[in-house]
Amino acid sequence: MSGDKGDGERVLRLVTSNEGKAMEYAAALAGISWKVERVAGPYEEIQADTLEEVAGASARQLFAEGSVPPPFVLEDAGLFIDALEGFPGVYSAYVFQTIGHQGILRLMEGIRDRDASFESRIALCVPGGDVELLSGSCSGTIPQAMRGSGGFGFDPVFIPEGDYRTFAEMSIEEKEERSHRGRAMAALRERLARL
Amino acid sequence: MSGDKGDGERVLRLVTSNEGKAMEYAAALAGISWKVERVAGPYEEIQADTLEEVAGASARQLFAEGSVPPPFVLEDAGLFIDALEGFPGVYSAYVFQTIGHQGILRLMEGIRDRDASFESRIALCVPGGDVELLSGSCSGTIPQAMRGSGGFGFDPVFIPEGDYRTFAEMSIEEKEERSHRGRAMAALRERLARL
Repeated sequence: MSGDKGDGERVLRLVTSNEGKAMEYAAALAGISWKVERVAGPYEEIQADTLEEVAGASARQLFAEGSVPPPFVLEDAGLFIDALEGFPGVYSAYVFQTIGHQGILRLMEGIRDRDASFESRIALCVPGGDVELLSGSCSGTIPQAMRGSGGFGFDPVFIPEGDYRTFAEMSIEEKEERSHRGRAMAALRERLARL
Repeated sequence: MSGDKGDGERVLRLVTSNEGKAMEYAAALAGISWKVERVAGPYEEIQADTLEEVAGASARQLFAEGSVPPPFVLEDAGLFIDALEGFPGVYSAYVFQTIGHQGILRLMEGIRDRDASFESRIALCVPGGDVELLSGSCSGTIPQAMRGSGGFGFDPVFIPEGDYRTFAEMSIEEKEERSHRGRAMAALRERLARL
């Protein structure tokens, strides 16, 4: 069986060049009967309007190239701010690298509608090459200033609904319980149990 | 010969879903011995760090799909602002659609270094499938407020070096003389004459 290492332990490859993401997966997938092996990427992403398209097309492309044997997962995630027409959205990583937290806070100065959501789409490529999508989302708001040093990316400027702390003020376990990625990873764990 | 219509007039296909861009090409390529035929796209763009990569890979992909016969051109362009680490850069179209001019002006509030450049990369796919790149760039500055109603995209927030008007305050011919796209199109005209 593909993904079987002979001793019964199956291997899931996680394709990401993002250290913070890799740590969250390691924490969330510890204790399952799969060994998670990181492939450090990067892979080629298409420019598309949705996270689904980016993650799905990237996984299909990676499978077609044959460089990473399935089963493997990769994830696309983004912060969607209502008052900014969904910006930075699918381009969150690029926007973070250029204008950063301060850019987001500046764009939100004086804006009363602070609603936003963090979205995650995991593409799971199963043996044979089919690609399945697993989703997680988290509603919240943009604070007036950045807070916290945990997490990565836009975590210091996002407060999940029902909490008062930003993602960057939480432990990795607390973030997992509430976050878009935590929810998508929970769906992934469930799917892996049936694979 | 590929691109020949029998009566000696050769056909160059221009792949773009952008009306403003199509108009600028029609104006700049009027009078050459090629007939320019617009293919309204959109095509699939990869996410890459440079305009060259986006334009080149998109053209190769389009040729591989066989849907548009060469010779054809497509163009990727972007506004690169020094003080914003090159933002919005390769994602200018998306950034324009979300945070728009006002977003750019807001990010630049209080920033003294207003230097920026507009960059254009034309990918020309010649008969046989080889892809050649033609470049044009234009240095300039970001004004304190938007001005003008011509052009498209970020034209109202860009003043080319040596002028006092934004691109949006110029006629299509005046913009062509000074702009990144005008310069890339001049290189394209020269190349077509030798094709």
